[in-house]
Amino acid sequence: MRGKFITFEGPEGAGKTTIMEMVYNYYKQKEVQILSTREPGGIHIAEEIRKVILNPDHTTMDGRTEALLYAAARRQHLVEKVVPALENGTTVFCDRFIDSSLAYQGFARELGIEEVFQINQFAIGHTMPDLTIYFDLDPEVGLQRINETQGREINRLDLEKLDFHRKVREGYLLLVEKFPSRIMKINADQSIENVYKDVINQLEALLS
Amino acid sequence: MRGKFITFEGPEGAGKTTIMEMVYNYYKQKEVQILSTREPGGIHIAEEIRKVILNPDHTTMDGRTEALLYAAARRQHLVEKVVPALENGTTVFCDRFIDSSLAYQGFARELGIEEVFQINQFAIGHTMPDLTIYFDLDPEVGLQRINETQGREINRLDLEKLDFHRKVREGYLLLVEKFPSRIMKINADQSIENVYKDVINQLEALLS
Repeated sequence: MRGKFITFEGPEGAGKTTIMEMVYNYYKQKEVQILSTREPGGIHIAEEIRKVILNPDHTTMDGRTEALLYAAARRQHLVEKVVPALENGTTVFCDRFIDSSLAYQGFARELGIEEVFQINQFAIGHTMPDLTIYFDLDPEVGLQRINETQGREINRLDLEKLDFHRKVREGYLLLVEKFPSRIMKINADQSIENVYKDVINQLEALLS
Repeated sequence: MRGKFITFEGPEGAGKTTIMEMVYNYYKQKEVQILSTREPGGIHIAEEIRKVILNPDHTTMDGRTEALLYAAARRQHLVEKVVPALENGTTVFCDRFIDSSLAYQGFARELGIEEVFQINQFAIGHTMPDLTIYFDLDPEVGLQRINETQGREINRLDLEKLDFHRKVREGYLLLVEKFPSRIMKINADQSIENVYKDVINQLEALLS
């Protein structure tokens, strides 16, 4: 049987990566055949593409160029790593996937959710996630958490970022409305333990 | 007034590049403000993307990854070089553009003309060519020409390529049907002088 494809989405500071690891360990112990990955996922071509995206010298990079490059890297990671695992019956957890592009580039960067969705559909074909866990959090709370961890004050740049992250959240919430049966919204403004429980509750029906 | 955007399309061996240069010189002498370019056009980011596409080590590159990378490089060349020139009133000649992706990747590589068109529309927005000159040539004639120039026999690999280039031609001819007012088909199976005359005839209405 084909494995389940589960993606984890949300802002930094929401505990997404930590909880994905906890959930991975939980199912690993239950002997579920499982793979945990994130783009570019050690795929050489995808990493080469990512280097072009992240090169700090590329100050003239256009937003649409960037969106196409993310879609290209996503495609390669998908065909080399995700799809072979799914076909082998392995459940795949992926930290960020198509919804990140839709929320960050489509909505917050204003390229258009529909347009960014189309190029990503070209990239991923029929391999949409079976389930997406979205960690919803007020960006102000996320920022507080990150600052507390790093022990510093909130500055002007952080507040500018805050506006951007408010738009990202708005984008994610639109996606929750758009794909109500695929995307499950989890309240990330709770203790790690409670968020973890909520995520397990969402996954149980699919993975047990 | 915005400059005219004219693209030149067709197989290798059809005289496309030579004639584009002749036509460029003709209009240059007539003091038309004109720019001749080809992707990636000396645009650093587009060249970096092209390196990823053409790297011979990237043997596992998926066709869709490649199509997205071409679209990304096209976008960057367009926003950094083509659009500023057009807005400056300069006529732009571009050796290959969107139709190459449609004919080679969409049709001959079977990714789908419509699908490759969509990602390229994301890349180029409203900047479609005002006119496209397509150099139509039986691939067998093109192959003969190339071989005569290089003084060698036609081999098995050439014949395999021939099948591919027959499909490319079929793709281009579909595009001529699909965009009858934009794409002008020129018979490239004539002397250079006659092809040149036909091209000038097509351009005169637009550029004089």
